[in-house]
Amino acid sequence: MRQSKLFAPTLRETPAEAEIISHQLMLRAGMIRKSAAGMYTFLPLAQRVIGKIAKIVREEMDREEGQELALPIVQPAEIWKESGRWEVYGDEMFRLVDRHKREFCLGPTHEEIITTVVKNDIRSYRDLPLRLYQIQNKYRDEIRPRFGLMRGREFIMKDLYSFDLDEAGLEESYQAMYRAYTKVFTRCGLKFRPVEADSGAIGGNVSQEFMVLAEAGEALILYCDACNYAANIEKAVSKVPVASGGTMVPLELIETPGQKTIDEVSAFLKVAPEQTVKTLFYGTGDGYIAVLVRGCDQVNEIKLYNSLGGKNLYLASPEELHEVYGLPVGYVGPVGLDEKITIYADNLVKEMHQVVVGANREGYHYRNVEPERDFVNVNYTDLRTANPGEACPRCHGHLQQVRGIEAGQIFKLGTKYSKALGATYLDEKGQSQLMVMGCYGIGVSRTMAAAIEQNYDANGIKWPMAIAPFQVHIVAVSADQLQVAADLYKQLNEAGIEVLVDDRNERPGVKFKDADLIGIPIRITVGPKGLAQGEVEVKYRQTGAEERWPLTEVTTRAASFIRQCLSENR
Amino acid sequence: MRQSKLFAPTLRETPAEAEIISHQLMLRAGMIRKSAAGMYTFLPLAQRVIGKIAKIVREEMDREEGQELALPIVQPAEIWKESGRWEVYGDEMFRLVDRHKREFCLGPTHEEIITTVVKNDIRSYRDLPLRLYQIQNKYRDEIRPRFGLMRGREFIMKDLYSFDLDEAGLEESYQAMYRAYTKVFTRCGLKFRPVEADSGAIGGNVSQEFMVLAEAGEALILYCDACNYAANIEKAVSKVPVASGGTMVPLELIETPGQKTIDEVSAFLKVAPEQTVKTLFYGTGDGYIAVLVRGCDQVNEIKLYNSLGGKNLYLASPEELHEVYGLPVGYVGPVGLDEKITIYADNLVKEMHQVVVGANREGYHYRNVEPERDFVNVNYTDLRTANPGEACPRCHGHLQQVRGIEAGQIFKLGTKYSKALGATYLDEKGQSQLMVMGCYGIGVSRTMAAAIEQNYDANGIKWPMAIAPFQVHIVAVSADQLQVAADLYKQLNEAGIEVLVDDRNERPGVKFKDADLIGIPIRITVGPKGLAQGEVEVKYRQTGAEERWPLTEVTTRAASFIRQCLSENR
Repeated sequence: MRQSKLFAPTLRETPAEAEIISHQLMLRAGMIRKSAAGMYTFLPLAQRVIGKIAKIVREEMDREEGQELALPIVQPAEIWKESGRWEVYGDEMFRLVDRHKREFCLGPTHEEIITTVVKNDIRSYRDLPLRLYQIQNKYRDEIRPRFGLMRGREFIMKDLYSFDLDEAGLEESYQAMYRAYTKVFTRCGLKFRPVEADSGAIGGNVSQEFMVLAEAGEALILYCDACNYAANIEKAVSKVPVASGGTMVPLELIETPGQKTIDEVSAFLKVAPEQTVKTLFYGTGDGYIAVLVRGCDQVNEIKLYNSLGGKNLYLASPEELHEVYGLPVGYVGPVGLDEKITIYADNLVKEMHQVVVGANREGYHYRNVEPERDFVNVNYTDLRTANPGEACPRCHGHLQQVRGIEAGQIFKLGTKYSKALGATYLDEKGQSQLMVMGCYGIGVSRTMAAAIEQNYDANGIKWPMAIAPFQVHIVAVSADQLQVAADLYKQLNEAGIEVLVDDRNERPGVKFKDADLIGIPIRITVGPKGLAQGEVEVKYRQTGAEERWPLTEVTTRAASFIRQCLSENR
Repeated sequence: MRQSKLFAPTLRETPAEAEIISHQLMLRAGMIRKSAAGMYTFLPLAQRVIGKIAKIVREEMDREEGQELALPIVQPAEIWKESGRWEVYGDEMFRLVDRHKREFCLGPTHEEIITTVVKNDIRSYRDLPLRLYQIQNKYRDEIRPRFGLMRGREFIMKDLYSFDLDEAGLEESYQAMYRAYTKVFTRCGLKFRPVEADSGAIGGNVSQEFMVLAEAGEALILYCDACNYAANIEKAVSKVPVASGGTMVPLELIETPGQKTIDEVSAFLKVAPEQTVKTLFYGTGDGYIAVLVRGCDQVNEIKLYNSLGGKNLYLASPEELHEVYGLPVGYVGPVGLDEKITIYADNLVKEMHQVVVGANREGYHYRNVEPERDFVNVNYTDLRTANPGEACPRCHGHLQQVRGIEAGQIFKLGTKYSKALGATYLDEKGQSQLMVMGCYGIGVSRTMAAAIEQNYDANGIKWPMAIAPFQVHIVAVSADQLQVAADLYKQLNEAGIEVLVDDRNERPGVKFKDADLIGIPIRITVGPKGLAQGEVEVKYRQTGAEERWPLTEVTTRAASFIRQCLSENR
């Protein structure tokens, strides 16, 4: 493609609206333009990248027996009401009515409609398993769209749904998708990590996220430095040693005037925060629950939400508790609470001894508390957020922390949707059985942005070869080299190499700046100095390494480097 | 692909909802399923066909310097208000509001948004021309969605927009798209005809439709049997001889009791309908106009609408005219009408002599009317619908009639949108100029349906090779032939041939029926009789011709036939 014809309006200045690198660079490289909050036009360079990612995704889905189809974007409300999610999605779902006042939504995901399609046409166990996918725009009316393509309201997703006979079949489908996702992100040339994840509003109980590692990532990941354990911070667990208790001694009420925070109480009583238990209260709409974790730990609200079976919760303020139960602000604790308050405590709390807790009396704490002895009506479960440096739950290693961008997620759904929507089949004995489902998403447009977050420098993007908009960028220094550039362009094209040739009437400086910004892996400069010796200057965008190639070897050397890049990631 | 795995649920019965062949066959062949009125899921077979059409479209757009991008489907209302079309589109546009109550629509077309994108980034004449396209879902809330994919509410379109410096540039872009469209439909293996068309709500003044010829087509086409003139019935013109007048004689009022229709009056007065003029009245919202055509002609309301500059019109009933002006039902005419009523008359009327018209008096007509002498306040223009059998407007040939499906349309838009939205560039002298635009659409999903309307028989679809979901269908007669079928499948696949192999545990009759229904061009039956002689039976779906191929020649013969099919349409 000739750059003089390409619609890629580059910008010198970084637009003020762009907060993160990928957003800034995509605007500056003329890849995207905003049309409304969270809604973007993909200009030709971005469209080429999207096309390449989509092609890799298709090939890997097909390899694992995925079949591509296309579900409607505009979906009738009825099926969402049947599954119960018409209400659940709330304001995040774009809704509309047609001219006959029938209700529709713009699909944020497609479990309902694919389950309906499959249940209407599948009768027998012989027709399963099925793995069906599509690549399509999805819609979520985010309250605060931001970070460019990272958290948009209109975005491109690949979503695959698996329908199996039973849990064993689901496990196969799930593993197939795990393989496929691993290949997709590997082939895209990205550093990534599959991590255990919470399954959130989609449902189901087993889920993994594929995280593209990048500092700008919204997600925190803990991973083991010894084994392959890795989990989203929302899900991660760790092994934490708890001091074993000495002889039990009686509970002691102790005056702690003005000492309200964990830090204050610890200092005042000269105990480590690890020896205290803090008590938080959450409102559930029909009352309150108390939540206990060690004084040094954070309550993990996702774990709490799941422990309560997906009940909506909010953190109640101390003032609210004072109002309702007369509890003193800063001195609340689990001993002697109103019986109507159920206590949820983190597993570690159960193992603790000689603990300090608030006494529910202004200016007092208890010490020598023995949770097993002194707390009643407690549900113990994993409720704390794991921390880097803690021991791996699986081996002797320790957890490290890294940031990532969630580019894919795979879920075991089980029978949640097949039950709600009546998706059954007849087994070999003629008995009706529920299909067992999984769902598997890749954010195609988000993967493009994530690739940039992982591959850039001060001058611009450094595309991995497999998803670069072009493979080679020929820059003609001046009009005198246009003919040589055109000849090279033709040669490379004929060898099946994707080339952008900068034939614009611009100063060399402008051309080099734009080339760095756009980030095509191989830059070939055709200039008078090199040509005098029958050579071109080559610069690799990823490493910055420079070489000179004889004109006669340009095609073979470019082809060989491209082949090498692509095969490394196979 | 193994058919036992393919999600293509075929139906024996034709669903009652399906009115036309393509709709029936796509449902029966397991290609589509309805999710709501005018909204469909494309199952894997349909998705494969769509993919092939889209690929051909992309290649031909790219060849003519089109650049692919992706515009948002959800578009902000502001730009539609700026162009004035937020109101014009009325109920046909799906509208929605986001959580912040901002208004959006689902794009029925993308002139506004592409013009906005281009105007924001293009400054100089050096950046033009641009030809930008996308392939994407479009939305029209049809009042009565029907005919399956023909008139859906969610459908797949390719839309390209050209931005040129001037009219000469637009002409080049328009011709480039004419070439590209001709190649697209030719390569798809379709019989089609480009016809002159009305430009409708999109605007502009030059437009052609690409009609796939098929009996089920909603569009009537007139074409010349001698030259290449062809036009949509809404636009077609013809040469019609008009009897030259003798000596002018005075206007004569004549009693015609009870003779109200053209036929009654003609018979009563013994004149041909060609010698009468009929007068119709249209309400314009702020009054009425009278429209005159020969008694034997039909008013073409599209031509009338355009003559009035796009004013909305309705045919007023004789009773309404009686009410307002006291005109007698069945005896209205242009002589002596209220001055406030402007008269629009078809060009042919001007040439007529000694004509009969209603006298605006109960039971009376005038005869010997001379339009040029007796009608006042008349605007003559082309207002009649041309008819088959009439003379070609360009040559000595005659017009023939045929039905077609509009699968593509190309428009010269001129400056309608660049003016409304302020899309300008600076010319070589630094002067601001309006960009000159064109727009060009192909109904991708409709092309799939149109291909079926043109290629089917009583047993099912007969796909043209270039857009068939698979090229070869191997049918193993029984389990005994599965190994041979699998070997052939592997061989053909390795030769790059797209194969579906029917490995299902079904009776041969069921397999053959499904094969005919799905309509893959080459069917290879692997049965015991043939195998005994080292042969397979081959049936060409398009012609019904049968052959036997030695097992050893299957790949070369299939490849050669496929090559031949594809090259015929290059």
